[in-house]
Amino acid sequence: MNQDYIQPDNWCIIEEGFDAERVKSSESLFSIGNGAMGQRANFEEQYSGNTFQGSYIAGVYYPDKTKVGWWKNGYPEYFAKVLNAPNWIGINIEINGEELDLAKCTQVSDFRRELNMKEGIYTRSFSAVLQNGTEIEVNVRRFLSLDLDEAGFINYQIKPLNKDAAIVFKPYLDAGVHNEDANWEEKFWEPLQAQHTDNRGFVTARTFKTHFTATTFMHNTIVLGGSPQTITPQASNSEDHVAFSYAISCPQGQTAAIQKIGGYTVSMNHENTQQAAEQVIDQALALGFEAYETKQKEAWARIWEMSDITIEGDVKAQQGIRFNIFQLNQTYLGKDSRLNIGPKGFTGEKYGGSTYWDTEAYCIPFYMATKDQQVARNLLAYRYNQLDRAIENAGKLGFKNGAALYPMVTMNGEECHNEWEITFEEIHRNGAIAFAIFNYYRFTGDYSYIPEKGLEVLLGIARFWHQRATFSTYRNQYVILGVTGPNEYENNVNNNWYTNYIAKWCIDYALEQTDRVKAEYPADYSRIMAKVQLGDEERAAMQKVADNMYFPYSEEHGVYLQQDGFLDKELITVADLDKSQRPINQKWSWDRILRSPYIKQADTLQGFYFFEDHFSKEDLAKHFDFYEPFTVHESSLSPCVHSIQAAVLGRMEQAYTFYLRTSRLDLDDYNKEVEEGLHITSMAGTWMSIVEGFGGMRVRDNALHFEPRIPAQWEAYSFKINFRNQILKVSIGQNETQFALEGNEPIRVYVFGKEILVEPNGLVTV
Amino acid sequence: MNQDYIQPDNWCIIEEGFDAERVKSSESLFSIGNGAMGQRANFEEQYSGNTFQGSYIAGVYYPDKTKVGWWKNGYPEYFAKVLNAPNWIGINIEINGEELDLAKCTQVSDFRRELNMKEGIYTRSFSAVLQNGTEIEVNVRRFLSLDLDEAGFINYQIKPLNKDAAIVFKPYLDAGVHNEDANWEEKFWEPLQAQHTDNRGFVTARTFKTHFTATTFMHNTIVLGGSPQTITPQASNSEDHVAFSYAISCPQGQTAAIQKIGGYTVSMNHENTQQAAEQVIDQALALGFEAYETKQKEAWARIWEMSDITIEGDVKAQQGIRFNIFQLNQTYLGKDSRLNIGPKGFTGEKYGGSTYWDTEAYCIPFYMATKDQQVARNLLAYRYNQLDRAIENAGKLGFKNGAALYPMVTMNGEECHNEWEITFEEIHRNGAIAFAIFNYYRFTGDYSYIPEKGLEVLLGIARFWHQRATFSTYRNQYVILGVTGPNEYENNVNNNWYTNYIAKWCIDYALEQTDRVKAEYPADYSRIMAKVQLGDEERAAMQKVADNMYFPYSEEHGVYLQQDGFLDKELITVADLDKSQRPINQKWSWDRILRSPYIKQADTLQGFYFFEDHFSKEDLAKHFDFYEPFTVHESSLSPCVHSIQAAVLGRMEQAYTFYLRTSRLDLDDYNKEVEEGLHITSMAGTWMSIVEGFGGMRVRDNALHFEPRIPAQWEAYSFKINFRNQILKVSIGQNETQFALEGNEPIRVYVFGKEILVEPNGLVTV
Repeated sequence: MNQDYIQPDNWCIIEEGFDAERVKSSESLFSIGNGAMGQRANFEEQYSGNTFQGSYIAGVYYPDKTKVGWWKNGYPEYFAKVLNAPNWIGINIEINGEELDLAKCTQVSDFRRELNMKEGIYTRSFSAVLQNGTEIEVNVRRFLSLDLDEAGFINYQIKPLNKDAAIVFKPYLDAGVHNEDANWEEKFWEPLQAQHTDNRGFVTARTFKTHFTATTFMHNTIVLGGSPQTITPQASNSEDHVAFSYAISCPQGQTAAIQKIGGYTVSMNHENTQQAAEQVIDQALALGFEAYETKQKEAWARIWEMSDITIEGDVKAQQGIRFNIFQLNQTYLGKDSRLNIGPKGFTGEKYGGSTYWDTEAYCIPFYMATKDQQVARNLLAYRYNQLDRAIENAGKLGFKNGAALYPMVTMNGEECHNEWEITFEEIHRNGAIAFAIFNYYRFTGDYSYIPEKGLEVLLGIARFWHQRATFSTYRNQYVILGVTGPNEYENNVNNNWYTNYIAKWCIDYALEQTDRVKAEYPADYSRIMAKVQLGDEERAAMQKVADNMYFPYSEEHGVYLQQDGFLDKELITVADLDKSQRPINQKWSWDRILRSPYIKQADTLQGFYFFEDHFSKEDLAKHFDFYEPFTVHESSLSPCVHSIQAAVLGRMEQAYTFYLRTSRLDLDDYNKEVEEGLHITSMAGTWMSIVEGFGGMRVRDNALHFEPRIPAQWEAYSFKINFRNQILKVSIGQNETQFALEGNEPIRVYVFGKEILVEPNGLVTV
Repeated sequence: MNQDYIQPDNWCIIEEGFDAERVKSSESLFSIGNGAMGQRANFEEQYSGNTFQGSYIAGVYYPDKTKVGWWKNGYPEYFAKVLNAPNWIGINIEINGEELDLAKCTQVSDFRRELNMKEGIYTRSFSAVLQNGTEIEVNVRRFLSLDLDEAGFINYQIKPLNKDAAIVFKPYLDAGVHNEDANWEEKFWEPLQAQHTDNRGFVTARTFKTHFTATTFMHNTIVLGGSPQTITPQASNSEDHVAFSYAISCPQGQTAAIQKIGGYTVSMNHENTQQAAEQVIDQALALGFEAYETKQKEAWARIWEMSDITIEGDVKAQQGIRFNIFQLNQTYLGKDSRLNIGPKGFTGEKYGGSTYWDTEAYCIPFYMATKDQQVARNLLAYRYNQLDRAIENAGKLGFKNGAALYPMVTMNGEECHNEWEITFEEIHRNGAIAFAIFNYYRFTGDYSYIPEKGLEVLLGIARFWHQRATFSTYRNQYVILGVTGPNEYENNVNNNWYTNYIAKWCIDYALEQTDRVKAEYPADYSRIMAKVQLGDEERAAMQKVADNMYFPYSEEHGVYLQQDGFLDKELITVADLDKSQRPINQKWSWDRILRSPYIKQADTLQGFYFFEDHFSKEDLAKHFDFYEPFTVHESSLSPCVHSIQAAVLGRMEQAYTFYLRTSRLDLDDYNKEVEEGLHITSMAGTWMSIVEGFGGMRVRDNALHFEPRIPAQWEAYSFKINFRNQILKVSIGQNETQFALEGNEPIRVYVFGKEILVEPNGLVTV
C-alpha cells in the first residue's frame, strides 16, 4: 500500500476524493496534537466503515498485563500501553431522519482533507447525497489549541443543497473506549460520573491500576446562517456517556453549524478535574472560536519562525520536512518535564510506552537547536528524575551499588517492555542517555547541568557498564556478552562494537566529569560523593574496564566488526538479494533474519555518527562502504544516519535518496504500516539529515561549523539554529551560503574550516 | 519443597498421614496410566482444598492460540496443549446429610496412599470424623486396565464406625473441565450429548478446532456387606454433566461400597463412540471388577518380567528405578504408532505437545531393550509418517527441495511450540531423529527399516543440514549460525559443536545409507529416488558441507568448544558459585543466565555420549573435566548422561550421585516442581544410567559388550535385555557378573572386551 494520494504542497497535507480503503491511513496522516493531547483524524460523525479510533492524553497510560508461555525471569510484569482516551469529538448527525454516514451515502463528492501545517488547523469538506435524497455540503474545521492546551475546537457546518433539512446535531462524550492493542480485552477506564448542565457535558473516568482521573468535557453552540441559536437540547446520560440532541430546521442553501469545544482536564494537573473543565470551557467561551483560531495561527507562526526549514525547487522534499517538523511540535513542546516523545506520538498505540532511546539519540538535537535550551534540559531532567528507578531496574537484573540501567521503554521510569529478550539485551540505550548529556553541554555550553544532575546519571551508567563487562582471560581484555545492538536483526551477540565502544566512552566521560566537578564545583562534588559513595578502588576498577575494552576488528577488511562472528555470515549484499524477499521482516522467518548479514538500522555506523571526531573520513568511508550494502533500513531510525554520512562523504545522490526516504517515510508509506500511526521520533532524524547532513553543522570548541552541500534537485534551502540564545539563519544555494544572525553579539562560524564572523543582525555570504 | 514423605519400599510408593500441603505433589506422584489414558491421583470425592485436577487421553490435544506482543515471523499459530479430559472418577459422598470433604472433616487419621507398582493398583485409605460426628473408615482401590484400556475401575468402600449411616453415593461425569495452562480461559470441549440409562451414564463432547469426539462413560454398582444392591438412582443431566444419586442405609460396622467403571471411547478409534462405550461397559461387567484386577496384576507381571531392574542393598535406589520404569510403561506401551511419549505423560499439562527429541535421544533405547522391537520401530515410524509435515515446516522457514525440519514439539507433525526463539534455533532435534534410526539398526540388526522408511527421513534431514549450513569465506569452512544446542541456557549461538557435529554425521550417514540401499535394495532405491529426486550435484554439494564442517576447538584446553565465544565467558565453576544463587533459573534474570558459562544439560557431552566410539577415553575425560564443573543440571535430561560418562571413566561415587538425582528426581522433588507433574522422558535416562552406565552395555559389530561396575552402596543389581529376540539377564555383584540367556541360540557377549559365549538357558559367571 505504497500510497501516492497525498497532494504535493509546500504547506499543506491534502487528500482529494473519498476512498474507504484510505480512511485509516489518512486518520494517521491528518492527526492533530498540541503536546498535551492529540487525536487521529477520525470523522466526527458516525462512520460504519473501517476506522481506527484514537484519542490520547500526554502522560496517561495503562499497565496492560502480558502473557507469554515461556516467561523469562526479570521480565517486567506489564507493558505500559498508550491509552486510548475518551472520545470528545463525536457529533452524530441526523438529516431528514437519516443518520449521516459516509459509508452509506449514495454519493460522496468533492471530499477533501487539508491539514494546514502553517496554521495548525485541520479541515474536511465534502458533498454527499443521502439515501433519502437530501444533498448536503459539509465543512468541518478542527484544531487543538496551543494556547489553551486542554481544549479543542470543532466547527461543523452543513448546508442542505436541494431541499430544506431537519437537522439533528447529536454531540456526545464517550468513555467506553478500548485499545486496539489491549491484550485481554479489558476495560482500561472506570467511569466515575457523567453529567450535563445546559450545553455542557462532563464524563469523569479513572484509569484502572494507574488511577489517572480525567474529565472529558464539551460545550456546544448551534449556529444558523451565522447566528447563534438558543436551542434547549435533549440530553441523556449513561455511566460513561453523555449525549445531547439539538434539532434545527435548516432551509435549503443556508448553513447550520455546531461549534463544539471539548477536551480533557487530568488529575496530573488538577485536584478537581470537573471544576477545571468548567474553567476551561469558561475560558474558551470568553474569547470564542474565532479568537482561538487566530491565536492558533499566531502560535504556529512562532513555532515556524524558529523551526522552519525551507527548500526551493522540490515541493515533495519541502512538504516532507515540514510534515516532520510539524508532527514533532504537535507531539512535544517541552513545557512539561514529566512528558516525553512517544514513538507514535498521538497518532496510534503501537509500541506502547512514551520513552525510548530515540529521545536522546534522535530528538534532543532537534529540540536543542529549534527551542529554548530549557526544553532539552527538561528532556535530560526526565532521566535524572527517573534515576532511582533505573537503579532499581538494574537491581532486578542482579546489578549492585548504584549501577543504573535505564529501561528499554518506560512511562514512569520503570521498565515496561517485555515479551522479548532485547529488553535485557539492548543495553546500549544507557549509552545514548549519557551521550545526550555530553551533547547538551557541547551544544549549549551550559555546564551547570552536569554538577546539578548529570553527573549522578553518568556515574550510575558507568557503574552499570563496569559491572556488565566480563573479563575474558582468553582475550586478556574486557568483553560484553549477550547484547543486542541498535541493529535488532541480531540478538544475544557478543561484543557488539557499538555497545562496547559507547560503554568505554561512558566510563571515560563519567570519570572525566567527576574530576572536573571536583575541581570546579566542590560543593556539588561533596554532595554527590556523599550520595553515590564512589571510592578510589571502584574508580580504578572502572577505569581498568574502559582502558582494556575489546573491540572486534577485521584486519582483512580494515573495519571494526559489528559483533564477534559477523564474518561468518554469508555476505550477500542487499543489492544481490531478490526484491521478492523484501522487506525481510515480512518475508523471512525470524531465525533466517538473525543469521543473515542484514542490518535493520545503523549500528556500527551509529557509533561513527556519535563519535565522528574519533575517526578519520577515510575510516568512515571504509565502514560506510562495508556496512551500507548490508543495511535494509527496515527501521525508521536508519536512513537519516546514512543520509548524514553519505553527505559527509560527498555522495549527494545517495544522501538525497536517504533523505527522501526518511522525510516521506509516512507520507509515502515506505514501510506499509502508516495505518497504525506515524513514526514520530525518526522525524527528528529527518531534521538532522538536512542540518547535520546537507548543512554539515557541527559544534566544536564552542563554535558552529558547517560544510554546506546541496542536492542537485534543490535550488536552495535554509534553516535556523538557536545557538546559545542567538538565532543563526543559514541559507544554502547551489553556489553560495548566507549566514544571518538575530542576536546581540557577533558569532564566529567555520565553513569548511574557515573562520567567518557574523555580526548581529548582519548577513554574510560565502 | 524438597519432600521426603514418600516411604522407602522396594515395590510401592507410600504416603502416610494427611497433609493438605502435599496433596498436589501426591496427585502427581500417585498418577496412574495405561498408555491409552491416565490421570492424576485426584480424590474421587469432593475436596475443597488445593488440588490440580487432571485426566488425559492419549493423542487428544487442543491447539491453544497464543498471544505474544512481539510476534516473530515463522512462529506457529498455536501451542498444542495436552488436554484435560472430562472427569469420570468423581464420586461425591454424603454421609448422614453431610458432604464428605477431607478439607472439612474434624479429624482425619490413618491416611495412606499406596501405589503398588508391581500390580499397577492405586489404593487410598483413611479414617475421618465428619462435622456431624459420624466416624467412618474409607478404602478406595483404583486402576486403569491394561487389558481393557478404555476402562478404569474404582471400588470405593465406606464403613461407619460409631453409628449407622445414611450414605448417598453421587457418581458423576463432568465435561466442564478446563486446563490450568489455558491461555484464554477458553473452553476446550463442546458438549454434544449427556444421557443415562439405568446405572449407565454417558457424556459425549467434542474438542473445539481439533474435533476429537470422546464419550466419557460410567457404570455403577452399589454393594452392601459384600452383596450387590438393586437401587434405582436419582439421575440428573445437564449439557456436559451426568450425575446419579444412590441412597443406602449402612449399619455401623458394615461396609457400603460403590464400584464404578468408567473411561473414554474416542473418535480416533471408533466411529460411534457412544456405542463403543456401551460395549466397553458390557465387557467390563461380563468379567467384573475382581477378574480385571487379576488380569491387571498378570499384565504388570509380564511387563516387569522383561523390564525390571533389581537393586540389592539400597531400597531408595531400587524404589527410584522401579518408579521410573513403572511410569514409562504407564505412559507408553508402543501399541499405537500414532502416539508418543509426552514429557509429562498423563501426570500434568506443562510443556504441551506429545513429542520432543526426548523420544529419540532418551526413550528409544529403553523401549528397544525392554519390549518387542516393533515398539521402537513404531516410534521411528511416527516420524516417517510425519515427514511431509516436517518438509512443510522447513518450507515455512525458507528451506526447499524436500529439506525436512522436524518440529521442536508436536502432536500431529506440525510445529506447535512457539513464544520463544528456540523453536527455530534448537534444530539439533533433527539430528537425534536420524541418530535413532542408526541406533535402531545398530541394536536390532533390522536393516529393513532403512530402505522401507528410514532413508527418506535421513535424506530430508541431510538436505536440511546442507541448506542450513553457511559457507564462511573467512574460515573457508561451513558454519552453522544462530542455533540453540541441547543447553538451552545459550540462545542464538554460532557453531554449537554438538549441532555442527551431528549435522555432519547426518549427512555422512544419509549418503552412506543411500549407497547401501542402492546396492542391496535396488527396487527401494528406485522408488525413493523417484520421489526425492536426489541428483549427483546436490549429493556432491551435501558431501562438501559434511567434509568441510567447522568445529570450534580450543588448543589451550584441548577441548572442542560448546560454541564460538565460550571462552569469553567468566569461567567460574558451579562449585565456586554461592549456593544462594541456585537454581539459577529461579534466581537469575534470563540475560544473566545467557551470558554465564552454566550449562543446563549435557551439550558437548551429549555428543560424546552419542558418538562415544569416535573419541578416546582420554578425550572423554578431558571434555568431562572441562564441562562438568559448569553444568547445573537444571534439566531433568542432564544427570543421566553425566552418570553414564562418570561410570565409563570409573568415577563411581560421582556416577552414583548422578544416578540418585536422575532416578529420584520426582520422588525427592529435586527441582521443586513435582506438583506440576512428573518428568517422564528423563526416566528413560535413569534406565540408561544403570544399563549403559553401571552395566557398560554397548552394541558393537552386532554383539553386546559390557563393562560391569557397581556402586559401593549396592550389593548387586540385575537387568534384562531383549537383544534380537533373545533375552539376556545380566546380574552384577560386587565381585562377579552373571549372564543368563532365555533363547534358542548361543550368544556372544564381550566383557571388558573379552568374548564370552552364553548358551541358551545357560548361565555364565565372570
